[in-house]
Amino acid sequence: MSDFFKGIDRLAYNPGSDGLAFQHYNPDEVVMGKRLEDHLRFAVAYWHSFAWPGGDPFGGQTFDRPWFGESMEAARLKADVAFEMFDLLQVPYFCFHDADIRPEGATFVESLRNFEEIIDIFEAKMETSKTKLLWGTANLFSHRRFMSGAATNPDPDVFAWSAATIKTCMDATHRLGGENYVLWGGREGYETLLNTDLSRELEQMGRMLAMVVDYKHKIGFKGAILIEPKPQEPTKHQYDYDVATVYGNLKRFGLEKEVQVNIEQGHAILAGHSFEHEIATANALGIFGSIDMNRNDYQSGWDTDQFPNNVPEVALAYYEILKGGGFTSGGTNFDAKLRRQSLDAVDLIAAHAGAMDTCARGLKAAAAMLEDGSLEDARRARYAGWDTPKAQKMLTSDLATIAAQFEADDIKPEPVSGRQEVLENIVNRFV
Amino acid sequence: MSDFFKGIDRLAYNPGSDGLAFQHYNPDEVVMGKRLEDHLRFAVAYWHSFAWPGGDPFGGQTFDRPWFGESMEAARLKADVAFEMFDLLQVPYFCFHDADIRPEGATFVESLRNFEEIIDIFEAKMETSKTKLLWGTANLFSHRRFMSGAATNPDPDVFAWSAATIKTCMDATHRLGGENYVLWGGREGYETLLNTDLSRELEQMGRMLAMVVDYKHKIGFKGAILIEPKPQEPTKHQYDYDVATVYGNLKRFGLEKEVQVNIEQGHAILAGHSFEHEIATANALGIFGSIDMNRNDYQSGWDTDQFPNNVPEVALAYYEILKGGGFTSGGTNFDAKLRRQSLDAVDLIAAHAGAMDTCARGLKAAAAMLEDGSLEDARRARYAGWDTPKAQKMLTSDLATIAAQFEADDIKPEPVSGRQEVLENIVNRFV
Amino acid sequence: MSDFFKGIDRLAYNPGSDGLAFQHYNPDEVVMGKRLEDHLRFAVAYWHSFAWPGGDPFGGQTFDRPWFGESMEAARLKADVAFEMFDLLQVPYFCFHDADIRPEGATFVESLRNFEEIIDIFEAKMETSKTKLLWGTANLFSHRRFMSGAATNPDPDVFAWSAATIKTCMDATHRLGGENYVLWGGREGYETLLNTDLSRELEQMGRMLAMVVDYKHKIGFKGAILIEPKPQEPTKHQYDYDVATVYGNLKRFGLEKEVQVNIEQGHAILAGHSFEHEIATANALGIFGSIDMNRNDYQSGWDTDQFPNNVPEVALAYYEILKGGGFTSGGTNFDAKLRRQSLDAVDLIAAHAGAMDTCARGLKAAAAMLEDGSLEDARRARYAGWDTPKAQKMLTSDLATIAAQFEADDIKPEPVSGRQEVLENIVNRFV
Amino acid sequence: MSDFFKGIDRLAYNPGSDGLAFQHYNPDEVVMGKRLEDHLRFAVAYWHSFAWPGGDPFGGQTFDRPWFGESMEAARLKADVAFEMFDLLQVPYFCFHDADIRPEGATFVESLRNFEEIIDIFEAKMETSKTKLLWGTANLFSHRRFMSGAATNPDPDVFAWSAATIKTCMDATHRLGGENYVLWGGREGYETLLNTDLSRELEQMGRMLAMVVDYKHKIGFKGAILIEPKPQEPTKHQYDYDVATVYGNLKRFGLEKEVQVNIEQGHAILAGHSFEHEIATANALGIFGSIDMNRNDYQSGWDTDQFPNNVPEVALAYYEILKGGGFTSGGTNFDAKLRRQSLDAVDLIAAHAGAMDTCARGLKAAAAMLEDGSLEDARRARYAGWDTPKAQKMLTSDLATIAAQFEADDIKPEPVSGRQEVLENIVNRFV
Repeated sequence: MSDFFKGIDRLAYNPGSDGLAFQHYNPDEVVMGKRLEDHLRFAVAYWHSFAWPGGDPFGGQTFDRPWFGESMEAARLKADVAFEMFDLLQVPYFCFHDADIRPEGATFVESLRNFEEIIDIFEAKMETSKTKLLWGTANLFSHRRFMSGAATNPDPDVFAWSAATIKTCMDATHRLGGENYVLWGGREGYETLLNTDLSRELEQMGRMLAMVVDYKHKIGFKGAILIEPKPQEPTKHQYDYDVATVYGNLKRFGLEKEVQVNIEQGHAILAGHSFEHEIATANALGIFGSIDMNRNDYQSGWDTDQFPNNVPEVALAYYEILKGGGFTSGGTNFDAKLRRQSLDAVDLIAAHAGAMDTCARGLKAAAAMLEDGSLEDARRARYAGWDTPKAQKMLTSDLATIAAQFEADDIKPEPVSGRQEVLENIVNRFV
Repeated sequence: MSDFFKGIDRLAYNPGSDGLAFQHYNPDEVVMGKRLEDHLRFAVAYWHSFAWPGGDPFGGQTFDRPWFGESMEAARLKADVAFEMFDLLQVPYFCFHDADIRPEGATFVESLRNFEEIIDIFEAKMETSKTKLLWGTANLFSHRRFMSGAATNPDPDVFAWSAATIKTCMDATHRLGGENYVLWGGREGYETLLNTDLSRELEQMGRMLAMVVDYKHKIGFKGAILIEPKPQEPTKHQYDYDVATVYGNLKRFGLEKEVQVNIEQGHAILAGHSFEHEIATANALGIFGSIDMNRNDYQSGWDTDQFPNNVPEVALAYYEILKGGGFTSGGTNFDAKLRRQSLDAVDLIAAHAGAMDTCARGLKAAAAMLEDGSLEDARRARYAGWDTPKAQKMLTSDLATIAAQFEADDIKPEPVSGRQEVLENIVNRFV
Repeated sequence: MSDFFKGIDRLAYNPGSDGLAFQHYNPDEVVMGKRLEDHLRFAVAYWHSFAWPGGDPFGGQTFDRPWFGESMEAARLKADVAFEMFDLLQVPYFCFHDADIRPEGATFVESLRNFEEIIDIFEAKMETSKTKLLWGTANLFSHRRFMSGAATNPDPDVFAWSAATIKTCMDATHRLGGENYVLWGGREGYETLLNTDLSRELEQMGRMLAMVVDYKHKIGFKGAILIEPKPQEPTKHQYDYDVATVYGNLKRFGLEKEVQVNIEQGHAILAGHSFEHEIATANALGIFGSIDMNRNDYQSGWDTDQFPNNVPEVALAYYEILKGGGFTSGGTNFDAKLRRQSLDAVDLIAAHAGAMDTCARGLKAAAAMLEDGSLEDARRARYAGWDTPKAQKMLTSDLATIAAQFEADDIKPEPVSGRQEVLENIVNRFV
Repeated sequence: MSDFFKGIDRLAYNPGSDGLAFQHYNPDEVVMGKRLEDHLRFAVAYWHSFAWPGGDPFGGQTFDRPWFGESMEAARLKADVAFEMFDLLQVPYFCFHDADIRPEGATFVESLRNFEEIIDIFEAKMETSKTKLLWGTANLFSHRRFMSGAATNPDPDVFAWSAATIKTCMDATHRLGGENYVLWGGREGYETLLNTDLSRELEQMGRMLAMVVDYKHKIGFKGAILIEPKPQEPTKHQYDYDVATVYGNLKRFGLEKEVQVNIEQGHAILAGHSFEHEIATANALGIFGSIDMNRNDYQSGWDTDQFPNNVPEVALAYYEILKGGGFTSGGTNFDAKLRRQSLDAVDLIAAHAGAMDTCARGLKAAAAMLEDGSLEDARRARYAGWDTPKAQKMLTSDLATIAAQFEADDIKPEPVSGRQEVLENIVNRFV
């Protein structure tokens, strides 16, 4: 055992406790016929918790972690601490990028060797750990070689580097039994249209994605391929702007049955949407996959990646997830980082515990709303007029026929209350 | 002649003039082999100039127009004044909604009769006017019957009303020789997800659009069908959020060859995009149609619909349009309104004249940039690596092959300057 | 009794009830030694509930109220219905603008006569009603005469009209025993700097405010004078941007002891602040007065004026209010309107009931957090270093002395965790 | 000479040139009786051009500069290159933070020694350079010791460190003949109200500022003390939010005659204001000092610090500056950085040259507008009614008197057009 979490015990469900414990998250509690743990499928994000130094655009590192530094020894200590935290939190999953877990080498091959050595370590640890891999991914945005894009780079050699890197990360994810593979195109976009061939870049992105799907089938990876939308930051504009945009790209390249979305709360906010909107849209379009749970400050125009803490908001997100049938391969990944002033080991544990409680409260409230049924009854009643044969027939009719019939019928539709406040009051009974 | 524009003469191209004249817009000036008038294809928007009373959410009517009021007599006077203004400005086009031009009747049929009487008047006026119809459209958002949507209304009778209305507006557009027909779904969206069946509403919207396309072919209308994206306002969320979202919807319903987009500067801004981004995206996806030229205050989170006045910004928009080959059926519609304190007739003329000059300067600058070629040379050079056979072959290869080759080649790509500031300086030579 | 609320009974505190009842708001519940009713001091806003027709910038009236119309008869019916609603909700207060309650007359004097007749009616009703006047105010923004400002108008006659109107509204507020008088400068700002003399307008605004204060003393009005900050909308920029800006204006004109602020949640959001920030700032500057409780959509850049429904957010606002000692003359005014699709009488009651419950939950949570003391203990501990004599002495020292001492002491300060997530978890125990 | 700018010659005014030259900035051109150089007073910002590595929140260093690294040798090379660039651009001024120019030492005293050694070097270089110091400042935000504030830190030792640092930076600024001293409180604000004593922190900030003013007088520094407002980033909220807020703070601590503002375009945008608004406000309140010229992407919610390139916008800013009498001690500091993909030395020169040309065009247009006089004539005419004795007398009257007179006069004010579009057209004649 490392010293990092010294004095902190494995967290238990212990409502009312003053110490570090779950107040609301009881993994074994059964909700709508399923254990909470199986509903929520929590994952810890390796990057924020173990690789991020606490810097911001106006200041450097604040965290003082014994595993910081670009050596394999540091990387091994980091892996030890990470699995210790997984154990303390008893989370069923974690997620990682290649760059989170290994030092960058002088060459591609050296980076790969470093990576594979850590993957070996993960494999060994996972034999005894309860924590599995929700998803793996490649960091194709931090290094300066990606400054102008990965798949969409004007330099084909960077495309090649990216393709080779994705292959290695998919191999590792497959080896560790990962349940999904994620692509976030943080540099797939542009800084200025003046130097960008938008059309060419979109084609390159489509090709890379098709290759990822082919490779998945080739190696027999059964997990889902997930794209994570974000509108901008780091780039001025990113091609995977939001769920609807990703859907259009997938349709364009014929991949809408092969690829799903990993939706992040903070990215939804930055795109001008609510989190539940993005989930509902993905459900409507048949591409819902997984979520990155966090919280963006609505009033900070950058990615704040805070831990979730607003139960009513979280409840509405899980409501849409449960309405869509819940997670299959996906889960709740905490793509959330400590505030840079939260320096202590206990902050890391408390932040995750609070977030897990928030999600548990949200999911239980969502389930209660579904079981109560008032909201869904009201929704169905509102559209009941469409369930008549005449209305259904109209949908397959044509403008001239509808117009003729409409004039003949001399109908004057009367508005009906949308009852928004009444529905919001219903929600407030459960959160 | 009405009295409204008394004392104002037809505007001429008269650079340096202190009075009402075009300083930069000479319709007959030839740029890149085409007359400016034929490049820009200016249209006046009937609604803002003749139907809007000057109200805002905290105040009522400020304009005092002799044609205000819900009578046919007022509607006829309004038509007179409108065509007088078209003549003063010598604009080649105008655009209208049904509700702009006629008083609402007590029934659908009475509204239609009112509408057709004004269409007759338009038809007569257009025989001698130089001003043609760029596009017609139906107002399916102002009346309370549409408060919960038109095509996406929970009440099928409102769908029917909408279908019948669109038919009459398409008929009128066709009769007047309109070159496009536009759909803006101002109420196709939602106020709260709590009462909304997103999936059902998207289906309804797709069906209505398919019927519009069918009807176009049925009546032999040769113009384009255009959707106008906007992210929100009046609704919390609108389904035609931006160009990329519209593309996804079109692909979903197999209509991407049949329907194009009418892109508004202000709507682009509200969606978090630059105007030129939306145009470039539409070009890349093959759905560029027309533009609504105006300007949104970047710092007011609602649709401010101001007249364009920033030449550098306008130049970048026309640059993308010219790169895509320029307008075919589309044009430059001023979807712009006077500030509500700009009370006088002369304000209406001056606003349009200033906007036309701004656009003329912008288009001429854009043409000069294209003819100069420095920007396009730089763009081509940036992607030159992709033009090799090896790079092209990689695009049709697969991850494993690329990775193997990449490791064998031992390539270390070196970043190359993106030269954004240099390119911006080039632009500034022309604006 | 009018028919409007037929079938709706006076609301009672009845937790668990399915019908129209308070689930959480028990006016007689004692919290921190005071009845909830006396803590919260709820007020209904006359304008949103009784004068607003349901329009938005893209659509007209949706509500169908028997009292709509510009007649005294309608105004009397409106007053009847308003006091019926006050009774159903058992709210202790209401608020109004002159323009909400009376039809505009052809002249100033006629408008005033209309106004005074309704004030007489209010006075009579208030003899038997439990509902008192929290504040009155003048509508100096809706009529076209105010389009360029009230106190800040370029036309001195509009300044005079505004001054005369404020006088009559202060008189009426005084007569009805109002506890505050509010000024919201919806048109005190500008649309474009190009036509604005900022300096002159700020002076005019300062003068008007000084006259208001003088008049208060002259007539012996004991209530507070409150300014309501808002950054923009309807104007491009408003001079009373936020609490800190108002404070600067007050200091400039020597009025910081005479005038306080009425802080609206939605206006805080539009200014880029949290509601609790504005309250905390007002407390720190000694100018906290009252609140307009509502909720702005964080993702709609205009004033959405929704009913509050997010308990955790509301709790943080009341926490700052309670920390500052609670309301004195101020209260919780619901400056909130129904969504325009919420057409029914029952929506109006349910919206207020839900909002009152939300506030009651928020205030009770805030009180519990204060009584628990963990948050305040943590805050005090964080600044404990400043409580030493040495630290206090430094605050009255000078740079050279501090620098000399500092170099001599050779101190290297070590950062201490800010514990944000831990504190957020504490809050979540109470909401 | 270092090699960094090899092949780049000193820039000359050479309109029409294709190479690196000024197209519009002729320092000796006389505008409104003053040389352009003396109007614009350009300064290069040491930090962005020489200290920033090209990182962003999702990626590391992209620039490859021979002087990067934490050694005195590197710092000396950096100083050489900086003065070479000042010479190439022939800028009259530069600006710096302590942390830009020297490596951090292990202790305060060691950092100070490093700092003073570089100041000696600057002093020597400035004997022969034409480039003077516009302002110096202390970096009290990057190091982790400042994570919770400098003057507003909960730890008094950090206050002491900050005070000692400011003293040394003021001393150095004074020694080098700097014309201003700037304070930007990047960490003077909060991340969460939950751990913040707002009231106490505002007091601490006021005390530090008063000490700075005292020290200025003590050492006989004749330059201006300037505060740079910014609303947020890096903190959630910063106390010097915008010009109006700074004014309020100054008034509160009685420092409004002693301290002025350094207004940054990008910070104005982030606060929801136009740049010209902030300048006009500072002029109206008598606290205008200097500007940080750059450009923020309106659609990126963080500080993008781009080089200015939009002439119409820049012209409106200089219009307000010239209306206020132009700069006295202040100037035009380019607080602007290359995009991180702009890797080359030539990018650094071209970016500054383009920005200087943009500013020169803007200032010349602003001067032409002032000399033309149409805008100011229109503004004066709009307020002419206030110049009558009756109107002026009203300003010192009282509500009751005004109301009595107003009713007696029976005036009905008629709105007058604000002519915004006409005024915008006038501006467009000059830009």
